[in-house]
Amino acid sequence: MTVNKTVDPESLKLFAKQTATLVENAMHQDLDQALIATDPLLRETLEHSLFNGGKRIRPLLVILSSRICGKTDNSSHLLAAAFEYLHVATLIHDDVIDGAKERRGVPSLVQSHGLAAAILTGDWLHARSMQLIGKIAGNRALEVFCHATTGMVDGEYLQIRHTGNPNTSEQQYFSVIARKTGGLIASACEIAGIFANASDEQIKALVAYGTNLGIAFQIVDDLLDYLGDQKSTGKKIGQDLVEGKMTLPLIRALANANTDEITLFKTLFSNPDQRAENLSLIKEIILKNDGFNSARATAEESIENAINALSLFTDQNENTSYAMLKGLALYVISRDK
Amino acid sequence: MTVNKTVDPESLKLFAKQTATLVENAMHQDLDQALIATDPLLRETLEHSLFNGGKRIRPLLVILSSRICGKTDNSSHLLAAAFEYLHVATLIHDDVIDGAKERRGVPSLVQSHGLAAAILTGDWLHARSMQLIGKIAGNRALEVFCHATTGMVDGEYLQIRHTGNPNTSEQQYFSVIARKTGGLIASACEIAGIFANASDEQIKALVAYGTNLGIAFQIVDDLLDYLGDQKSTGKKIGQDLVEGKMTLPLIRALANANTDEITLFKTLFSNPDQRAENLSLIKEIILKNDGFNSARATAEESIENAINALSLFTDQNENTSYAMLKGLALYVISRDK
Repeated sequence: MTVNKTVDPESLKLFAKQTATLVENAMHQDLDQALIATDPLLRETLEHSLFNGGKRIRPLLVILSSRICGKTDNSSHLLAAAFEYLHVATLIHDDVIDGAKERRGVPSLVQSHGLAAAILTGDWLHARSMQLIGKIAGNRALEVFCHATTGMVDGEYLQIRHTGNPNTSEQQYFSVIARKTGGLIASACEIAGIFANASDEQIKALVAYGTNLGIAFQIVDDLLDYLGDQKSTGKKIGQDLVEGKMTLPLIRALANANTDEITLFKTLFSNPDQRAENLSLIKEIILKNDGFNSARATAEESIENAINALSLFTDQNENTSYAMLKGLALYVISRDK
Repeated sequence: MTVNKTVDPESLKLFAKQTATLVENAMHQDLDQALIATDPLLRETLEHSLFNGGKRIRPLLVILSSRICGKTDNSSHLLAAAFEYLHVATLIHDDVIDGAKERRGVPSLVQSHGLAAAILTGDWLHARSMQLIGKIAGNRALEVFCHATTGMVDGEYLQIRHTGNPNTSEQQYFSVIARKTGGLIASACEIAGIFANASDEQIKALVAYGTNLGIAFQIVDDLLDYLGDQKSTGKKIGQDLVEGKMTLPLIRALANANTDEITLFKTLFSNPDQRAENLSLIKEIILKNDGFNSARATAEESIENAINALSLFTDQNENTSYAMLKGLALYVISRDK
């Protein structure tokens, strides 16, 4: 009898949904405790931002990573919630910086409630997330969490530095995404391991899984920016390009492109209006120079590395946490939203 | 021989200056450690915001409060730095919210480096401060610190709610300042006590000292907004009024004013331009109705309460931490900047 080591997608989806509900319950309970005698507008802005159909991938990673190390404690739901808090805080502040009008198909907080509310609600979530991490998982976890947070800020700074620069290198791209996306995802896995009193070896494996998953997650995001369907992603196609972000498909394509194509691209890329108007033409240059395939191959390789990192967890049967984490990695590479 | 229980102001000033230097050294060392391989602009924005002549009152409170409980450990300087980090993070984000062009006589960060830098640098300081508090003073301290932080956010929300409302009550005013200013100052004293392994009684005394000091500090700020000298304070006179903030001198004056004065005030207060144009007239209404004296009396009472709270610390001779904390309280009430 062969063992199916991957959970079937429907079971994973069901588990993810159940987990999301438990984590959302933990968030509601936590807000009820934290928001006694506070301004009602604070609750309104928190609920607007927290309960609008997020994928809850970071919380799911926390739950699965602590379970794979043998910890099924109920407080893991609140620990998981802390990651969603920080993630949402980042999104709220990002939307202020980018002047984004929408988030997940509804008005962004800065759009619906203004600048002050967006900055303050982000700050509130920031502080609350750190309080929960320290309380539930201790100081070592807090160090990891805060390091991931300051790293995200640094990643944003690096991204701003490279924005609009058509010569952005692959190394610069990976520096940014490791900090902006990879750090928090890896820290979710690492902190869950710390919370579960896992061995150093197990924690190292979880960090490797999370780091690779984070890289793949971001590359897929970058691909969806060009190839996605707005109805699924909820994001306008070509947004990264219009903002002047040099993502992997583009960097890979330019490495293959001929001089004429590079010259043409640099002209088209030189200002936001031209970038918006010439999305199709730039997509063609990427396609012709294998940028999409090459980026996807790298994402697939990262997913393979992520899954291989978990090999030391020996209980790999269907419906184990191992199978779920593997299934989650396979979802990340195949997702269309 | 009578014992002079208050430090002489020059000795306090010297101690405060020496402490500020030690805390600034701790900040520089911490940044050197934290900013390895990060974007150079992040360091630039942090230095712009952190080293521009702040009074360093919160760090001084941390040092004195831990010393009064018998702890003279060197790590208290880094603990103190964490409070300056959080304070500066708050100022940076406040300046974004208020669209403030200046801070301490130099361009505010949002003015000099833009919106993204101001939001991100505030976030960085936020996360770093919490990491340091957890690491140096442990989880109980982190709880207090995060609670003070979420409280400041709530205080901002309340303030926004009351802004422009001429009927703001004294109770509403005190709710705002307890959260916006008092919370962080009280938490500096409390966390220093926790760090020093002080008894519950000692910590309670420090919290009472800090809470009262914070109230007095804010009332004096409110008085300086009307009565200060821009050359000393570095702030434009009447700024709070122009922004529509109902502070204690005004609230107290309206409680004494006759119907004609109240009607006149409400008309003048109804929009920012009128508030700016009629600063002198509004000042007259406050003066005539004893608003400044009444607010100052409350600040003085708070300072008395703050000093009385420290009575359980029995080593009260000149140049002890007791005498310094008392001297600091007397400075707060007499300061002109």
